[in-house]
Amino acid sequence: MLIVQKYGGTSVGSIDRMMNVARRCLASQREGNDVAVVVSAMSGETNRLLKLVAEIHDDPNDREVDVIVSTGEQISVGLVALAIRKLGGKARSFLGHQVKIQTDSAFARARIVSIDAEPVKACFAAGEIAVIAGFQGVDERGNITTLGRGGSDTTGVAIAAALGADVCEIYTDVDGVYTTDPNIVPSARKIERISYEEMLELASLGAKVLQIRSVELGMKFGVPIHVRSSFSDATGTWVVPEEREMEKVVVSGVTVARDEAKITVEDLPDSPGIAARLFAPLSDGGVVVDMIIQNSSTDGSTDMTFTVPSGDRKRACEILKREVADLVGKDGERIIFDDEICKVSVVGVGMRSHAGVAKRMFTLLAAEGINIQLISTSEIKISCVVAKKYSELALRALHDGFALDRPPSERASL
Amino acid sequence: MLIVQKYGGTSVGSIDRMMNVARRCLASQREGNDVAVVVSAMSGETNRLLKLVAEIHDDPNDREVDVIVSTGEQISVGLVALAIRKLGGKARSFLGHQVKIQTDSAFARARIVSIDAEPVKACFAAGEIAVIAGFQGVDERGNITTLGRGGSDTTGVAIAAALGADVCEIYTDVDGVYTTDPNIVPSARKIERISYEEMLELASLGAKVLQIRSVELGMKFGVPIHVRSSFSDATGTWVVPEEREMEKVVVSGVTVARDEAKITVEDLPDSPGIAARLFAPLSDGGVVVDMIIQNSSTDGSTDMTFTVPSGDRKRACEILKREVADLVGKDGERIIFDDEICKVSVVGVGMRSHAGVAKRMFTLLAAEGINIQLISTSEIKISCVVAKKYSELALRALHDGFALDRPPSERASL
Repeated sequence: MLIVQKYGGTSVGSIDRMMNVARRCLASQREGNDVAVVVSAMSGETNRLLKLVAEIHDDPNDREVDVIVSTGEQISVGLVALAIRKLGGKARSFLGHQVKIQTDSAFARARIVSIDAEPVKACFAAGEIAVIAGFQGVDERGNITTLGRGGSDTTGVAIAAALGADVCEIYTDVDGVYTTDPNIVPSARKIERISYEEMLELASLGAKVLQIRSVELGMKFGVPIHVRSSFSDATGTWVVPEEREMEKVVVSGVTVARDEAKITVEDLPDSPGIAARLFAPLSDGGVVVDMIIQNSSTDGSTDMTFTVPSGDRKRACEILKREVADLVGKDGERIIFDDEICKVSVVGVGMRSHAGVAKRMFTLLAAEGINIQLISTSEIKISCVVAKKYSELALRALHDGFALDRPPSERASL
Repeated sequence: MLIVQKYGGTSVGSIDRMMNVARRCLASQREGNDVAVVVSAMSGETNRLLKLVAEIHDDPNDREVDVIVSTGEQISVGLVALAIRKLGGKARSFLGHQVKIQTDSAFARARIVSIDAEPVKACFAAGEIAVIAGFQGVDERGNITTLGRGGSDTTGVAIAAALGADVCEIYTDVDGVYTTDPNIVPSARKIERISYEEMLELASLGAKVLQIRSVELGMKFGVPIHVRSSFSDATGTWVVPEEREMEKVVVSGVTVARDEAKITVEDLPDSPGIAARLFAPLSDGGVVVDMIIQNSSTDGSTDMTFTVPSGDRKRACEILKREVADLVGKDGERIIFDDEICKVSVVGVGMRSHAGVAKRMFTLLAAEGINIQLISTSEIKISCVVAKKYSELALRALHDGFALDRPPSERASL
């Protein structure tokens, strides 16, 4: 088999842990596999570098910032390669420009365009383990780029796709993807198999185990992703193409996102083009709007409610006051905001074929006396915005109500 | 003018100092110059990285060690480029593989083969300051290499040569090259102009201001080198081709090296091939022998005395006992060693045309009651090994005796 293993910052956070990574790589190679390993910077290193940068500079999208922060992974690959050699193995490190992880030129958030798998294959042919720097690439002019936080997951899956690997193993400090956050709901269960689409929804909704783009890439190229712990040998969670069995499960996971804020603009004229006028300046200002709800009324006016990342709420209000004062009032008197919200969501490919999931969700929340402020749905997801104080209560109610504390086989019969 | 400036680790040791470097670069650019700046790793960074490596590994010549330690300079170039931009200037960083500082593949001590000056020239054409990583290069297969300790000096002079620069300014924490170590001899004077050859001798003899290979490169390509302080605007020391004036000065500088040890092998058969048998195993073992003196005697036996770096003395004795026991005795009973020595030297191109320098040196040492154990000479240098306890006394005696506390014009008349 051809296996790509990716280790996060915690898994390479010390020399001891790197030796552990080296042992795992060698064990896999001894089983007869070709092994490429993608590593992140040692935990804390990227922040240390960004702190140095912050003493001079405040534009995180600068070419030079990528030159600086990419050194974290460079140190890791060198050390892991040395660790493998220390244990008697053969290894060679590769930086972004050495495997030609070609990206666009969007510094700090570059996207991978292509990868030259040949140097890695040559490495395998020589019996070596290829140790590849995560998070970094190089644009067509040879500038160093980085892929954004969590970008090493993306590197891992992209390398796996380029090599036609049998699996991309994502090693992390948890042992898989859970039905919900086990810190809040102790009865949360590890998910054994989940589809790319469900994983995408879970990741978008705040489950931080995998970077969204890595899941997208996995789906696009059909790379099976195995999320597992670097501290144990237990099987983790397989993220794979949708399987017939999965449809039997109505809900796979429940999440809560607490980093959004709600903004309502009241009393807008109910006429064409209003939404566009309201949201265009926010988009231009780089504010990403999540849910949007419009209430039409009978008196010719309307209310518009939407959510934005908490950190952007203040700026969003200022942009509206400045750019569309005629709609929101010069002092924004028609704007109401609420930072004390959260978004609870249920996800599952089974929803496509099972009716009544939404009804059941609303009933479960109502039974706890939780008022629903906003609702949005997709084919395999239902999200409700509720008061932040209910976040744990809502999560537990939904988790138990959809029987996520039981094995999928029992759940399917519900 | 086209100016290359090189800053050492202390000069970029903090964000404040990097801002200072940025100001200097911009000041030079504002005077109408094209400016390329070569920087070292922040002081302490290379040692921090080597310490990480040492936790795993003990071969400093490993490919992966260069991958790791080269990150120090990578961080520096990014930060200095940001600092220049912070002050309103334009700058762009270059790593070894981006300026194509092509080297051989001798990791940890690579030698520069060629440099592609075009990217730097394009930078100048755009009004930018080029900020180039010192110490690192790339071999023909794209592996990262480093040039050895102090290699940033070499990068600076090599970049200056490739660009046809008018000067390579080496900024350091002292304000130039001195007639001797001012910490030992307070009357030491800053040297205004010195020839490449004299500088080479001084550097070989322990004056640590410039890396030897950078001086060799400067001499080969006729690059004027200006060694000066990054903390003042004062003129430092110019290292330049030999000038007629210089010959009038008999002695330019006096040095002491305290990191050698002396080994004597007594009672060797005085027959052909003995020296070769003695020194071949040392050479094979990587021990660099400095001075060698053979005393022939009338009774058919001979003594061989030589010096090696202090750190290699023990190993050298062991090698001899193991490899040539028939010459030194199984327990090395014919080996005598002395770690308590030092080597004082006087250097000057004027020696070529002035007789009597050696005699004067011996007289000055004798006047202080200092016994000379070994002597070696070159065209422009005389070295004497004396007991280590005399090192300061010998240095002061020679410095005063050759009138190095006086300006060169007065000294020439001696």
